[in-house]
Amino acid sequence: MIMEDTVVRTEIAQEILANETAALERWCKGDPDGFLEISADDVDYFDPYQAARIKSHAELRQLYDGLRGMVKVESFELISPNVRVCGDMAVLTFNFVSRDEGGSENRWNTTEVYQRFGADWRIIHSHWSYTQPKLADSQG
Amino acid sequence: MIMEDTVVRTEIAQEILANETAALERWCKGDPDGFLEISADDVDYFDPYQAARIKSHAELRQLYDGLRGMVKVESFELISPNVRVCGDMAVLTFNFVSRDEGGSENRWNTTEVYQRFGADWRIIHSHWSYTQPKLADSQG
Repeated sequence: MIMEDTVVRTEIAQEILANETAALERWCKGDPDGFLEISADDVDYFDPYQAARIKSHAELRQLYDGLRGMVKVESFELISPNVRVCGDMAVLTFNFVSRDEGGSENRWNTTEVYQRFGADWRIIHSHWSYTQPKLADSQG
Repeated sequence: MIMEDTVVRTEIAQEILANETAALERWCKGDPDGFLEISADDVDYFDPYQAARIKSHAELRQLYDGLRGMVKVESFELISPNVRVCGDMAVLTFNFVSRDEGGSENRWNTTEVYQRFGADWRIIHSHWSYTQPKLADSQG
């Protein structure tokens, strides 16, 4: 039973990581629909640009529609991704590095919380932030 | 049954929010043990100062031991906290504002993922980042 449970959780972890990577590949080509398709109706969301938490799929769509075609990432890397599965919820964390055509690099801390709805795993919470951002003032 | 489930989830949400607030009250007086006591052995953790994800309670303890007695927050506020419970996992998200004695303010985006171990809810993942940080260069 413990063995079976471990196998199932490993399969779920692989599925979630594959879904996340596929959405990122589309995102990096300027296509936000990959993430919109795997986000739940009541998804909430943090990134460094928002004044407050985004609280629904409709709000996220509005944000992402404004970014459509604007993101151009040459290559990216998920560093030491980790998925922890507990029943119908799972949390994926990783450090993320993206490089643009000019070779400049952005480094991110990423949390993606997934929940199972029927056969599908959907993002219910997303948190993107910079890794060690260089701040302009004494903030922090 | 649905009613009961909703009541139970509301009680869990209240318990988690109370635990988080109690740990924050200690944190803001320079005492990190509140968070260490409610963090799981395999907790992982992001904040803006770390080069990579912290991956265990031992690593988190090392970080927090270095901050012991150094944090002095005069007042704080959790803005629109939200807890979503799914079985033995729960995700708490909020915006956080802290003010020091001089009145200067820091604004944060916060994600806390909790898991139930026996009777207790423990943090298995923590992600703290600045809300709209002012960056020094073209990062982002």
